[in-house]
Amino acid sequence: MTTTTPPTEATTAVQTWLAQLDQALSASDAAAAADLFTEDCFWRDLIAFTWNIATFEGRAEVAAMLADTLDRVRPTGWRVTDGEEPAAADGLIEAWIDFETSVGRGHGHLRLRDGKAWTLLTTLYELTGYEEPHGAQRPKGAKHGASRGRTSWQEDRDREATELGFTEQPYALIVGGGQAGIGLAARLRQLNVPTIVIDKRGRPGDQWRSRYKSLSLHDPVWYDHMPYLKFPDNWPVFSPKDKIADWLESYTRVMELNYWPSTEAKSASYNDQTGEWTVTVEREGQSLVLRPKQLILATGMSGQPNVPRFAGMDVFRGDQHHSSAHPGPDAYKGRTCVVIGSNNSAFDICGALWEAGADVTMVQRSSTHIARSDALMEIGLAALYSEEAVASGVSTEKADLIFASIPYRIMHVFQIPLYEAMAERDRDFYERLEKAGFDHDWGEDGSGLFMKYLRRGSGYYIDVGAADLVANGEVKLAKGQVDHLTEHGVVLEDGTELPADLVVYATGYTSMNGWAADLISPEVAAKVGKCWGLGSDTAKDPGPWEGEERNMWKPTQQDALWFTGGNLAQSRFYSLFLALQLKARQAGLDTPVYALQEVHHLR
Amino acid sequence: MTTTTPPTEATTAVQTWLAQLDQALSASDAAAAADLFTEDCFWRDLIAFTWNIATFEGRAEVAAMLADTLDRVRPTGWRVTDGEEPAAADGLIEAWIDFETSVGRGHGHLRLRDGKAWTLLTTLYELTGYEEPHGAQRPKGAKHGASRGRTSWQEDRDREATELGFTEQPYALIVGGGQAGIGLAARLRQLNVPTIVIDKRGRPGDQWRSRYKSLSLHDPVWYDHMPYLKFPDNWPVFSPKDKIADWLESYTRVMELNYWPSTEAKSASYNDQTGEWTVTVEREGQSLVLRPKQLILATGMSGQPNVPRFAGMDVFRGDQHHSSAHPGPDAYKGRTCVVIGSNNSAFDICGALWEAGADVTMVQRSSTHIARSDALMEIGLAALYSEEAVASGVSTEKADLIFASIPYRIMHVFQIPLYEAMAERDRDFYERLEKAGFDHDWGEDGSGLFMKYLRRGSGYYIDVGAADLVANGEVKLAKGQVDHLTEHGVVLEDGTELPADLVVYATGYTSMNGWAADLISPEVAAKVGKCWGLGSDTAKDPGPWEGEERNMWKPTQQDALWFTGGNLAQSRFYSLFLALQLKARQAGLDTPVYALQEVHHLR
Repeated sequence: MTTTTPPTEATTAVQTWLAQLDQALSASDAAAAADLFTEDCFWRDLIAFTWNIATFEGRAEVAAMLADTLDRVRPTGWRVTDGEEPAAADGLIEAWIDFETSVGRGHGHLRLRDGKAWTLLTTLYELTGYEEPHGAQRPKGAKHGASRGRTSWQEDRDREATELGFTEQPYALIVGGGQAGIGLAARLRQLNVPTIVIDKRGRPGDQWRSRYKSLSLHDPVWYDHMPYLKFPDNWPVFSPKDKIADWLESYTRVMELNYWPSTEAKSASYNDQTGEWTVTVEREGQSLVLRPKQLILATGMSGQPNVPRFAGMDVFRGDQHHSSAHPGPDAYKGRTCVVIGSNNSAFDICGALWEAGADVTMVQRSSTHIARSDALMEIGLAALYSEEAVASGVSTEKADLIFASIPYRIMHVFQIPLYEAMAERDRDFYERLEKAGFDHDWGEDGSGLFMKYLRRGSGYYIDVGAADLVANGEVKLAKGQVDHLTEHGVVLEDGTELPADLVVYATGYTSMNGWAADLISPEVAAKVGKCWGLGSDTAKDPGPWEGEERNMWKPTQQDALWFTGGNLAQSRFYSLFLALQLKARQAGLDTPVYALQEVHHLR
Repeated sequence: MTTTTPPTEATTAVQTWLAQLDQALSASDAAAAADLFTEDCFWRDLIAFTWNIATFEGRAEVAAMLADTLDRVRPTGWRVTDGEEPAAADGLIEAWIDFETSVGRGHGHLRLRDGKAWTLLTTLYELTGYEEPHGAQRPKGAKHGASRGRTSWQEDRDREATELGFTEQPYALIVGGGQAGIGLAARLRQLNVPTIVIDKRGRPGDQWRSRYKSLSLHDPVWYDHMPYLKFPDNWPVFSPKDKIADWLESYTRVMELNYWPSTEAKSASYNDQTGEWTVTVEREGQSLVLRPKQLILATGMSGQPNVPRFAGMDVFRGDQHHSSAHPGPDAYKGRTCVVIGSNNSAFDICGALWEAGADVTMVQRSSTHIARSDALMEIGLAALYSEEAVASGVSTEKADLIFASIPYRIMHVFQIPLYEAMAERDRDFYERLEKAGFDHDWGEDGSGLFMKYLRRGSGYYIDVGAADLVANGEVKLAKGQVDHLTEHGVVLEDGTELPADLVVYATGYTSMNGWAADLISPEVAAKVGKCWGLGSDTAKDPGPWEGEERNMWKPTQQDALWFTGGNLAQSRFYSLFLALQLKARQAGLDTPVYALQEVHHLR
């Protein structure tokens, strides 16, 4: 293009603000910089300033953060991202921005209100000198020329497989080979960080294959891409579990991961002196000690199965499964089944049992939020993750950043109207549900499903059809707490007796630090504290306010111990920042953590 | 965008021409339509008008084709492709165009000179009513709602695996599971054509794994994408053979192909009455009869290994391998090796043997063309297939069509200057080669490597380093024809004796119809004739001029017998048109073939 158009007012406003910011930061004037923000401002930083994932609220927190970090970070080159024009709407100006720090390249998002920053997102996406090889910088592959004794790609891979973990130690050990573990491992491979992923199951993808057979992803394909390799254009909207399993299995191969199947971590301890973990693993029945510098638990953000302890569980003569181990309905045609719980897994399992011809009762113990899948797609996700979003230029990468730019503190404000719209859209459905006696809620503040997910990771069902079975009585509904089991059934506190050949405990999971308790020690689990949740002071997410997901993808109170997990989208997005934190440490960069999170809850 | 800019002169010229074409075609006036073309025109049609792959040269051929096809094709809606502005340069106006036919949607490319069409490419890319589900039309995956007895994705896949080929017959049987076979199978899956791919090797990708260990793709990544699933952005420029093998193995899984490994086709015969093949296959040692309606040979466009018959091969005491079965150099360190041939495989194998520390002699029997890999990338491919091309908007799909728009008859004219530039760029290199006694050529008309590939599929080496070994004498060069072998070596016609522990016959391949001779009958092989080559009347590509690759991706003289093959790019591009030809037949559409090719050569 040779034509030049004059900058818009929005562009000028952003450029002016960035110049002011640059001036204040260059002068190491944290107070002046903070004055460029509104009083109710938010600055969310993903490792660019803080080597942490943290949100700073209000000018004082911004000033304090800058005062501590500026001399080290030395940010420069603040500018509007090439090709991205700032846009004004609803009294706000939004802009994509770029900058550099002393160690790498940053990208961010800015919202100006009356010439001051209301929200600022800063992310570090690349370390100078450690850029990932891609595009024009991709590896050559074939080694051209001729040199004696050179090895082939396969020989190099074979040698790595025989050496890493044996004669050479991995820098990073990832426990858990689901989407979070392998997405992170893929990034670490690109960053040249020697990494092993272990998983107790026999094949990559078995994390999904082993679940109940009717399971499909509840999130749509546009939201689910893994790093580097997008699903093809003909991939289904909602992946069946075995199909996503096959994809993840292929992914481990194509991304050249060092993936050890049938390998279980038995114990781990950290030596502060040497900065090294000693991890005993059992690989295909053989005991082996690994000595990584960094240990990452990717064992499922839902944590360990929360199997309740009811009186009589030992005398019940039928089958009992936690939802995570329930194989599906095939053996239960014509049998009587009781499912304890009323969230996602409970509904999916009830639906599949009913479809197989079982007599099914759901036991609702507390109120549940239900959002219909098509309403969620249409109202909740379409603007960021949909075919239309992609067509209008909102790539997955951009959508991730837009989402990340909204501070958790006020995210519910943006969510509430969406769920009000869903309530209106599906009014008949909710009336039928409630008429059937189902206790339905929209979250304590009406902010719906996604906030429940972020706050507690539970308390909802994305309806793909099973809610109607409850509404119309095909799946029976019982309500109340379980008192005990008998030889032949479940008895509720109100005395209701539910005969059962099968009891499924769809009773959820405990915090991820439970894995750390088992693998490392209860002391270390207590030291790092509860994982997940924002401190929203709502059910199962007690205060105080913490502002970010506890312990996820960022430094914890235990050196060299990290947690990753969540849905495919979070695994994709946050794996970049976790990978860069690990790379920076491997490369020996100075990585002082600002505002390391405090621990307020043990579980 | 709400602003409207007036059409450019180029756009107006194209629109005017398309309107004239539309008028002539609507009036079924073939002569008037032909008058819209220059006297030296070319119309290349990929199944849109002819249910064939054919190029018509000059107004008379264009008029004849239209006279025969117009009433059936009824093309309408001729227009400039949305968002693609026609461009004028060098006295030509180029445009992307769209149109519809009575059975589907067409896309094409037009070059106007002085208001008349010089080249026109028409392709049919989609059959109305049989559109592939993708983008907004992608499958939903999860089946929402609840219905008794419904099956999961995995159960459906498992059922297909147990039924197809046993209780249910495939519509299409593809013999050969390399890139051509599986790329076609992926498209047929999307088009809902029941298909089985068989391959004699144990695992998908073994077509590549089984080759000599130093092999890498000689074409760069931008040129090599498979249908639907592009290589990620960090994929190496030149894939090592085992890495591409892993990719193809994953591809068969992700694309949900019915791929039968360890399965060999033993015999096949066609019943004209029933329109059905009877194909006996041996699957993991068990004999089985398949009855497909269509049989596709995807057994390698290079055809069968051409193993020479030299006197003394039976008395030679060392190892003898055809290049296709040569395992690589590991067993030959310090041994004396003779490689017969001087094309791609010969150079690769000489280089790998030298690297492993063998004493290597190459026997050049006839002159060879060498192009350096980096020169080919820079001069030959960069405009269409490169990181820069992608960045400037030339997607792989667009590059394929641009390339397809250049008529084979005049393609050498465009190629010659590229190779002149390479000769200039690498002058020192070629001087050194010739000084070493190597017979080098640029093709009979100086048109270089790609024309040799299209005409004969041999006669060249893409230099990735081994040519220097010959130039500097590290790999010894002998010249002349082989007379015979002795117990301990090779004797040339001039009496030169070359001692050898290993003789590799890098002596190329025969035509693909050799596979048909073995599998079906010599009579059918003779009926369909030679595969590949254009009839250029150059070495190994005898005239008369045929204008398209013989027998490839299009109807042959044998009903229901098809050939596919070639490099990854050809497999990607032509698989669409072959798949649509098969789909049209499966759907029962009328598919009269215009200008079915005649047979001029048996092999």
